[in-house]
Amino acid sequence: MKKLLHILITLTSFTAAAQDSSDKITLVIHGGAGTITRANMSPEREKAYREVLNIALQTGYNVLKQGGTSVQAVEATIHIMEDSPLFNAGKGAVFTNEGKNELDASIMEGKTMKAGAVAGVTNIRNPISAAIAVMEKSEHVMMAGKGAEKFAKEQGLKIVDPSYFYTEARYKALLKAKESEKTELDHDAKEKVIKKNQKTGALKPDDLIFTEGRKFGTVGCVALDKFGNLAAGTSTGGMTNKKYGRTGDAPIIGAGTYANNATCAVSATGHGEFFIRSVVAHDIAALMEYKGLSVKEAADEVVMKKLVERGGEGGVIALDKNGNIAMPFNSEGMYRGYIKSDGKSEVLIYKD
Amino acid sequence: MKKLLHILITLTSFTAAAQDSSDKITLVIHGGAGTITRANMSPEREKAYREVLNIALQTGYNVLKQGGTSVQAVEATIHIMEDSPLFNAGKGAVFTNEGKNELDASIMEGKTMKAGAVAGVTNIRNPISAAIAVMEKSEHVMMAGKGAEKFAKEQGLKIVDPSYFYTEARYKALLKAKESEKTELDHDAKEKVIKKNQKTGALKPDDLIFTEGRKFGTVGCVALDKFGNLAAGTSTGGMTNKKYGRTGDAPIIGAGTYANNATCAVSATGHGEFFIRSVVAHDIAALMEYKGLSVKEAADEVVMKKLVERGGEGGVIALDKNGNIAMPFNSEGMYRGYIKSDGKSEVLIYKD
Repeated sequence: MKKLLHILITLTSFTAAAQDSSDKITLVIHGGAGTITRANMSPEREKAYREVLNIALQTGYNVLKQGGTSVQAVEATIHIMEDSPLFNAGKGAVFTNEGKNELDASIMEGKTMKAGAVAGVTNIRNPISAAIAVMEKSEHVMMAGKGAEKFAKEQGLKIVDPSYFYTEARYKALLKAKESEKTELDHDAKEKVIKKNQKTGALKPDDLIFTEGRKFGTVGCVALDKFGNLAAGTSTGGMTNKKYGRTGDAPIIGAGTYANNATCAVSATGHGEFFIRSVVAHDIAALMEYKGLSVKEAADEVVMKKLVERGGEGGVIALDKNGNIAMPFNSEGMYRGYIKSDGKSEVLIYKD
Repeated sequence: MKKLLHILITLTSFTAAAQDSSDKITLVIHGGAGTITRANMSPEREKAYREVLNIALQTGYNVLKQGGTSVQAVEATIHIMEDSPLFNAGKGAVFTNEGKNELDASIMEGKTMKAGAVAGVTNIRNPISAAIAVMEKSEHVMMAGKGAEKFAKEQGLKIVDPSYFYTEARYKALLKAKESEKTELDHDAKEKVIKKNQKTGALKPDDLIFTEGRKFGTVGCVALDKFGNLAAGTSTGGMTNKKYGRTGDAPIIGAGTYANNATCAVSATGHGEFFIRSVVAHDIAALMEYKGLSVKEAADEVVMKKLVERGGEGGVIALDKNGNIAMPFNSEGMYRGYIKSDGKSEVLIYKD
């Protein structure tokens, strides 16, 4: 009996030790990908982005450092970006053709492979928290529209008047898009912006928001906590001038968001239609699981090869259970950054 | 010059010959999975199901035989099941908690990997056609709610009064579900039905619809056309008594529907939440692409192993580019059938 007890205690200590991966805690973020170049960026604007991205990283890091879970870290980090008007998620979301802000978000937890998502919500201040509530407080994975809003309210989440999401820059972007009767991803309009840019040398800040908003504004976060568990989350306002209740990849588990402790956690940002068809986030995990690729090899294969061949512009952040990071993108730039267990962090924007 | 011409003609004939896969045309269907056992089924009811399933197979086969595309065959086949009150899709869809019928559908084409989906639509007679319109006539993949309905109307699809979808049996099922204040997938309610079944020896037809409706009513079709192209489509009314704008796997590319000529076409039916988390349809394709499994091995691995371990009940139909079929399910039964190029067909319902 004494011997059995000893074995049990040894086993328990071993398990506890094995589960403490404090030295591996890692958090990675993105704030959207697209035509983001030095030529398009003013120093003030770059500084503003870097500041918020750094605060986001530090916020998530503090959660992880204090023993929080990867889901808690992802939530806290994305709140910072959702609450900032700089990013196309939460406050600062782009406008639909009808002049509304319709938000999507999703979360997945690598340990349980549980997931949650909301699509087309208009009055939930932090859609990522609604996605987490769907995952943790319901038997469902995905809720849409009024129903999702009703659920979020019942769960005590912060409900705001839809006007909360209004920002002048995004509204101007809608007016511009409507003026040219073009939707977000119209290539002619894109070329027009690029030509204008080439002519003038640089875009004005409003144009930049227009350009960026027209592209793939989305925020995302992947994290690894001290328990060795991964999580991934994504939040977006979709496309400027979007019509017909268009839904992108951000709320789609497997496309915009995926997490599995056996492989990796992924959050994507890009031309959503291509990311849905290519089931981007799950494809990266599948390449690791079935072909034995590293997280970097797998993410590169999907983003830099498959998506490029198929014409799908954008990028991903990916993180494996050992804290290895990948942040590939095939667009001109991607707001991104990471922070490691020792607190060392880096924020990047451009290709070089 | 003459020699070059000869080479060109030879090449062209070769290509044309290679593209004519008339001898491989195949079509597979499902009409939902769940607690479908001989004990629960009356002879009349079984006959009714077999009849519609056979008509569906024959309809799709005729399209393929006459040189139609796999997408056209999937559409025509699913129309038969959407228009039949026996299946939880189109006419005969289950009711939401609010007493509405909210329909989801999706399509994917293996050659181009283009896809389309609609979610939460209430007045489109054939949601699968709306999904196809999204794929073929828009730059988007997924549209939801009122926006999707507006698009479908603009595309000239058949719009009906929502009352078109009413069937007495499904409405009774809602009342029963509400009575017990349980949602579709509540395990207590499921046990109650099973216990009742065990007591009485068999359920009454209404109970059966209730049981079947409470489970995983969905219809789907995968097809291989004479051009060697695969397609997959899925259509559903979701879960009886569903709340909060719950969206299942049927409109999610990668989860309920996936097609890629390089691997396979898949349509799923089951406990949608588990199918979304497991990215079921794409996972089967990934096992073929990255591990070299056959379509049968891959479908079995996901449905009979992974989903069983994770508690996800249901099944899939899958078809590769050579006309090989898989129809695994881990529930008690699945309405299913296939038809081969020679017109040989089979309709199956139970496990044995």
